[in-house]
Amino acid sequence: MSRPPVAVVIGAGDATGGAIARRFAREGFTLCVTRRQADKLEPLVSDIAAAGGAAHAFGCDARSEEQMVALFSDIERDIGPIEVVVFNIGANVRFSITETTERVYRKVWEMAALSGFLTGREAAKAMLPRARGTIIFTGATASLRGGNGFSAFAGAKFALRALAQSMARELGPQGIHVAHPIIDGAIDTAFIRDNFPERYALKDQGGILDPEHIAEQYWQLHCQPRDCWTHELDLRPWMETF
Amino acid sequence: MSRPPVAVVIGAGDATGGAIARRFAREGFTLCVTRRQADKLEPLVSDIAAAGGAAHAFGCDARSEEQMVALFSDIERDIGPIEVVVFNIGANVRFSITETTERVYRKVWEMAALSGFLTGREAAKAMLPRARGTIIFTGATASLRGGNGFSAFAGAKFALRALAQSMARELGPQGIHVAHPIIDGAIDTAFIRDNFPERYALKDQGGILDPEHIAEQYWQLHCQPRDCWTHELDLRPWMETF
Amino acid sequence: MSRPPVAVVIGAGDATGGAIARRFAREGFTLCVTRRQADKLEPLVSDIAAAGGAAHAFGCDARSEEQMVALFSDIERDIGPIEVVVFNIGANVRFSITETTERVYRKVWEMAALSGFLTGREAAKAMLPRARGTIIFTGATASLRGGNGFSAFAGAKFALRALAQSMARELGPQGIHVAHPIIDGAIDTAFIRDNFPERYALKDQGGILDPEHIAEQYWQLHCQPRDCWTHELDLRPWMETF
Amino acid sequence: MSRPPVAVVIGAGDATGGAIARRFAREGFTLCVTRRQADKLEPLVSDIAAAGGAAHAFGCDARSEEQMVALFSDIERDIGPIEVVVFNIGANVRFSITETTERVYRKVWEMAALSGFLTGREAAKAMLPRARGTIIFTGATASLRGGNGFSAFAGAKFALRALAQSMARELGPQGIHVAHPIIDGAIDTAFIRDNFPERYALKDQGGILDPEHIAEQYWQLHCQPRDCWTHELDLRPWMETF
Repeated sequence: MSRPPVAVVIGAGDATGGAIARRFAREGFTLCVTRRQADKLEPLVSDIAAAGGAAHAFGCDARSEEQMVALFSDIERDIGPIEVVVFNIGANVRFSITETTERVYRKVWEMAALSGFLTGREAAKAMLPRARGTIIFTGATASLRGGNGFSAFAGAKFALRALAQSMARELGPQGIHVAHPIIDGAIDTAFIRDNFPERYALKDQGGILDPEHIAEQYWQLHCQPRDCWTHELDLRPWMETF
Repeated sequence: MSRPPVAVVIGAGDATGGAIARRFAREGFTLCVTRRQADKLEPLVSDIAAAGGAAHAFGCDARSEEQMVALFSDIERDIGPIEVVVFNIGANVRFSITETTERVYRKVWEMAALSGFLTGREAAKAMLPRARGTIIFTGATASLRGGNGFSAFAGAKFALRALAQSMARELGPQGIHVAHPIIDGAIDTAFIRDNFPERYALKDQGGILDPEHIAEQYWQLHCQPRDCWTHELDLRPWMETF
Repeated sequence: MSRPPVAVVIGAGDATGGAIARRFAREGFTLCVTRRQADKLEPLVSDIAAAGGAAHAFGCDARSEEQMVALFSDIERDIGPIEVVVFNIGANVRFSITETTERVYRKVWEMAALSGFLTGREAAKAMLPRARGTIIFTGATASLRGGNGFSAFAGAKFALRALAQSMARELGPQGIHVAHPIIDGAIDTAFIRDNFPERYALKDQGGILDPEHIAEQYWQLHCQPRDCWTHELDLRPWMETF
Repeated sequence: MSRPPVAVVIGAGDATGGAIARRFAREGFTLCVTRRQADKLEPLVSDIAAAGGAAHAFGCDARSEEQMVALFSDIERDIGPIEVVVFNIGANVRFSITETTERVYRKVWEMAALSGFLTGREAAKAMLPRARGTIIFTGATASLRGGNGFSAFAGAKFALRALAQSMARELGPQGIHVAHPIIDGAIDTAFIRDNFPERYALKDQGGILDPEHIAEQYWQLHCQPRDCWTHELDLRPWMETF
């Protein structure tokens, strides 16, 4: 009896990551969701279960090679074949260059780039023998532009984009779809609500991104037939300046 | 009694343009399709009608300001409110710089850029009073890269991309979604079949783009809610080098 | 007795084009400078002569294939071997998309792109038999970004960039250096002085580009040995936001 | 009595870094050159001294915040005001994604990006009080394109480019020129000679970059007046495909 396909979401936070997990669960995927602290995943897992889906929570530091190698091999062995992997960890900080500490510069890279590398590599190892699968890395405005004050964050997001390109060029011809959506705008999160109330006030008119809508785009990326794959696309509210 | 929404396809050729027209017709749009010679549109219009849809054929030279102004105002007056406009005219030629005649350079620009400008401007005029609508310009590999021998074609496609960006920045905040998909690969057309048989032989393994799949992506672009719009995305077969 | 090398400046206006002409004249080039009206070139030609250089004025509409073909063959026959060609015609206009007339859209393209194509092609024809020479196309901010209101101007500048890339890829391996400097800022011209006085007031602190300094960069591009050529570079005042 | 201006070259290897050091020394700068092992700098320092210049060698691991902070403050205190800083450390490796170890991925980033960050930050700290100076980060083909097998190297070079952009946008308006030349081709080094003999054979016809010519471009970047700064430029042999 064949096991249902698995979708892994690395960084299944309350907004985008969680919405993506629910979207793929609705389509019959078994979800494996990770965060640093497993207990914070409880509401998401219950949510998915309540809607008739299946989800497993993993407490996992995505910066740890050991933990990531174990995570992917455990899932393949115990749960099912990994068909979709979404990497969704960011670390948006802004400091002038002279105020950027080595600790911050390194940490932001470890969270947003090194973790992405470990995710992508372990995903590739799992998918290559089957010559199929979808790997999606979440990009941001800073993936394309090194703005004033963003040496650390843009450095990490540029590196993640390089990873996505490099993997797409290597793995595409081996049947694996690697995509890099670039989210260019504020997302409807508690963080934006609490820190950028004026921006958040635009929510009713569609001025900030709804995580459910982002999730729909990720699902559509996975649905693309292999003669018509997208590697990179931007996602942006209609009123956003760019 | 309200009239059904209209989708206009400028350059509804046998492959991509036709597939896009059929895709939107399936969703209840009344299609207005154009080519230089109206009679060549007969099979497409019949096809759509046979499937229960509605389509109107217009013989129209998209390089003619007079004809394009008339086309859009006739449609708005006689058929219905224009909700979607797709510009799908290209003119791929390759000549060394010294062999590129002024006539070719000008003609390729008129077909792929000037026509796009007239299409976009008339679409904007129709849509702005309603503050809604989707305008899609079809891009190509040459939209991003001026390759050896492509001064004319890349010149026109670069210009079309500039138009799409400029319109997106102006019209987005006025409620109109402007998108620029970039098709990076050979499409399943008679032209490819007859002239690039080795390439065409990759069709069975998904090595060339299926027009129906491109059309699906155009439909998905139109479906994006306005907090989550894509301006640019690439569409490419899995085996395509990039 | 060998004739001195010729530098051609198409669009030798009062600011940048003129400064470039003077810069190359200082190095011993015979200058051939063009504008629509030859008499406006009188001060520049006198200037160069007064400094001990040689310059010839040509009244020439760069949009006319016939005139451009004649110009280049006349120069090669009567004056000397063309070693450097600089294309320096722009046509910066800004209109909302619905206010952009077909006439403006076409004219801007003819001035900034079609003229560039004719210039580049005739330059290539002259230089290819000698497998040497430098061709420089002047770019602008709008060469890289289609801003709100710039569908015509960005369309033309994008097209010119495509031309420069295409020619660089074809002609580089044949010994001809094709470069595309992108001027991103206001230049010290009468136009800026009269229309943007606040911007012009930054002149003393280096907030606008000095044409002599731009000319120096063009000279440096020509001086690059062929193992170390630049195709594209930006030129921008230190205080300019980008 | 005022001390002569200092130019610092981080990563003063035998080819490019050394040539840059010699070029600035010729102009009267006191050179401070670094490598991991100070003794390897002996020939360069002797060379500069023999030509009448002044140079100081520093053994320094550019990945160490402590060592880099000390380096810059020692130079400012003991030698002179830092006017120019060149970062020239790369780490070109190529591995398929599944063969890329965490150790390699991290090390390549530490060498090419973290070291660049520490260099740039300490340079900024030294230069900001004087509101002047030039900081140059050496880029590569992989700064713009994540090729198959280059997830680690392109990741680091993309990150370095983000740093250069971010610093240019912050520090330009404070009087500091930040530039990012992109070297797109093989350089005349022992490594290329020993490992890519066919490529090296193109040396006589200018098919590989001469370090002296690269150095000249770095010098020209420093010479640009502040109304006419270049942030990014490519440097490429005439025969190189791009």
